[in-house]
Amino acid sequence: MSERRQLTYRDAGVDIDAASRAMVGVAELVRSTRTADTLSELGSFGGLFHVPPGIDSPVLVASTDSVGTKVLVALMTGRHDTVGEDLVNHCVNDILVQGATPLFVLDYIGVGGLEPGVTETLVSGVARGCLANGCALLGGETAELPDLYRPGEYDLVGTIVGVVAKPQILDGSRIGPGDAVIAIGSSGLHTNGYSLARRIVFGEMGLAPNDPFPGLDDSVANVLLRVHRSYLRALQPWLANDHLHGLAHITGGGLLDNIPRILPEGLSALIDRSSWSTPPLFQVLQREGGVDDAEMYRAFNMGVGMVAVVAADHADSLVESLASAGETAWVAGEIISGARETILS
Amino acid sequence: MSERRQLTYRDAGVDIDAASRAMVGVAELVRSTRTADTLSELGSFGGLFHVPPGIDSPVLVASTDSVGTKVLVALMTGRHDTVGEDLVNHCVNDILVQGATPLFVLDYIGVGGLEPGVTETLVSGVARGCLANGCALLGGETAELPDLYRPGEYDLVGTIVGVVAKPQILDGSRIGPGDAVIAIGSSGLHTNGYSLARRIVFGEMGLAPNDPFPGLDDSVANVLLRVHRSYLRALQPWLANDHLHGLAHITGGGLLDNIPRILPEGLSALIDRSSWSTPPLFQVLQREGGVDDAEMYRAFNMGVGMVAVVAADHADSLVESLASAGETAWVAGEIISGARETILS
Repeated sequence: MSERRQLTYRDAGVDIDAASRAMVGVAELVRSTRTADTLSELGSFGGLFHVPPGIDSPVLVASTDSVGTKVLVALMTGRHDTVGEDLVNHCVNDILVQGATPLFVLDYIGVGGLEPGVTETLVSGVARGCLANGCALLGGETAELPDLYRPGEYDLVGTIVGVVAKPQILDGSRIGPGDAVIAIGSSGLHTNGYSLARRIVFGEMGLAPNDPFPGLDDSVANVLLRVHRSYLRALQPWLANDHLHGLAHITGGGLLDNIPRILPEGLSALIDRSSWSTPPLFQVLQREGGVDDAEMYRAFNMGVGMVAVVAADHADSLVESLASAGETAWVAGEIISGARETILS
Repeated sequence: MSERRQLTYRDAGVDIDAASRAMVGVAELVRSTRTADTLSELGSFGGLFHVPPGIDSPVLVASTDSVGTKVLVALMTGRHDTVGEDLVNHCVNDILVQGATPLFVLDYIGVGGLEPGVTETLVSGVARGCLANGCALLGGETAELPDLYRPGEYDLVGTIVGVVAKPQILDGSRIGPGDAVIAIGSSGLHTNGYSLARRIVFGEMGLAPNDPFPGLDDSVANVLLRVHRSYLRALQPWLANDHLHGLAHITGGGLLDNIPRILPEGLSALIDRSSWSTPPLFQVLQREGGVDDAEMYRAFNMGVGMVAVVAADHADSLVESLASAGETAWVAGEIISGARETILS
């Protein structure tokens, strides 16, 4: 036989042993997210979870999403500990708007060249997010795909499954003219608009992660990595309240595209822009990027992470309740006749 | 004011309108996967799904995975219609081994530069896979991440949720010495070992997608894109049968790592390699890559897509039942005392 180099899986960039070692490091943390309904142990093919008993006609609510190119900010700064929380909180909010509370999360990390420390840090963030929201990190997959992802880069994807009693599904059908639109403040960009924001901040403005962010008493890295808020704890007491008519998570598409998703035919949301001052972060992005208003309100949350539609005579009560739960909330507009639009006035 | 170019989200590589248009194209197909328990319509924040009634102590079984760099073969060949089926079938098998039948799937496509035709084709494949396995495509996300993925490239991730009655959970605990190990044939590489296989086929062997695959009456593209088999239909009749003691999906880690995952302490699986002839595909990969035996049996499935452990006196009955369901199955070994290993003899 001719001399031939022996090829191994590791030669092709895949190291199964390193992947196993990385999981050992986070096993304890993942275990700590187990809830009373979690049945399976780490390492089984699928995660096992009891359907919680005592729920009237239980309906599962599921959603899958990534944190977008916020991971590229994590990579630039070398801080991988918070994007996992972003992922969980984003997913939690996505099912919260249908009245669901989370049961469990599964994460997927696609990565080019496994760096055990980074994977561990990412999964730790996911586990912390799960703990904070009272759900289990039921399973996950780290896929080493060296020819798809650049060395060290990764995508972080999460899937959440929650549950709601059928009579308590929030679908916006109770929304009527004259309802109040309550805005709940965001902590920053959350997980949307990062492709545009990074282009403005690192491109047009030429800033580095450790530079101070203009007009803010914080570094560029800190501002861009601020963790997506979960509104679960603040809104949970209202989920069984008939006066809460709808919730919209302000993600990609902003206030303009997300509020209409819950509006019945014939109704629009009239938003009074003077009801809050746009946070300086967004003002700077708009000015330095020369981005027009409509584009800003679609690409970014503009300071509003969640919108609640509530019976007008319960607006003050909801605002107070949210404030006492630590959220910034205000009456930002009302529901009017219209063609299922967000109208900014 | 100085002249400044106006930046839009599209300038940063993200086109929200194109993403919406792509979804319209697949809406009908996705809708066709709705099952009796699917509640939500496309476009809601989360997918809604009834917990099916009439199941004794229902336990949810969930798993998330990607098809790995099989997508790079799809990209090389321009054939994106089958990797979605691979994804679903892989996920279905992953929860089948715990006794679960699938309820719904959510897909995630991370992509660099959205090509509507490709996204539609990918989601169509996922939907077809769901239809074939009787589960709903409940939701999904296409994330346009131009700075993370190279133009036109994508990662395809799926999450499955299934259900099993608690008394019917398959966890391998019933496996005992003398049990028969049944192998069920794979259709090809399924979704594992693609980084190594691509390196051998396109690197060492210098083949192009349209070349004939040596020793096989088919093109390289056809051989490498053969769809991952779902074993749901063939094994479903056995899930409630006490004589079926365990199932192992032969994925990354191969026969060597996957069978031990279901073995109780003190038992090993003795596999008789002469019970089947290694399919020519794997023989060619081994010879041309100079890959040693142990590496082959960890990186690839070697012709076995699923392993079933069954009471010895039911081995023939299971093999016949699988054959009549269209599967190739044979007695490949037995359970012996040991240290939770796969022993190839």
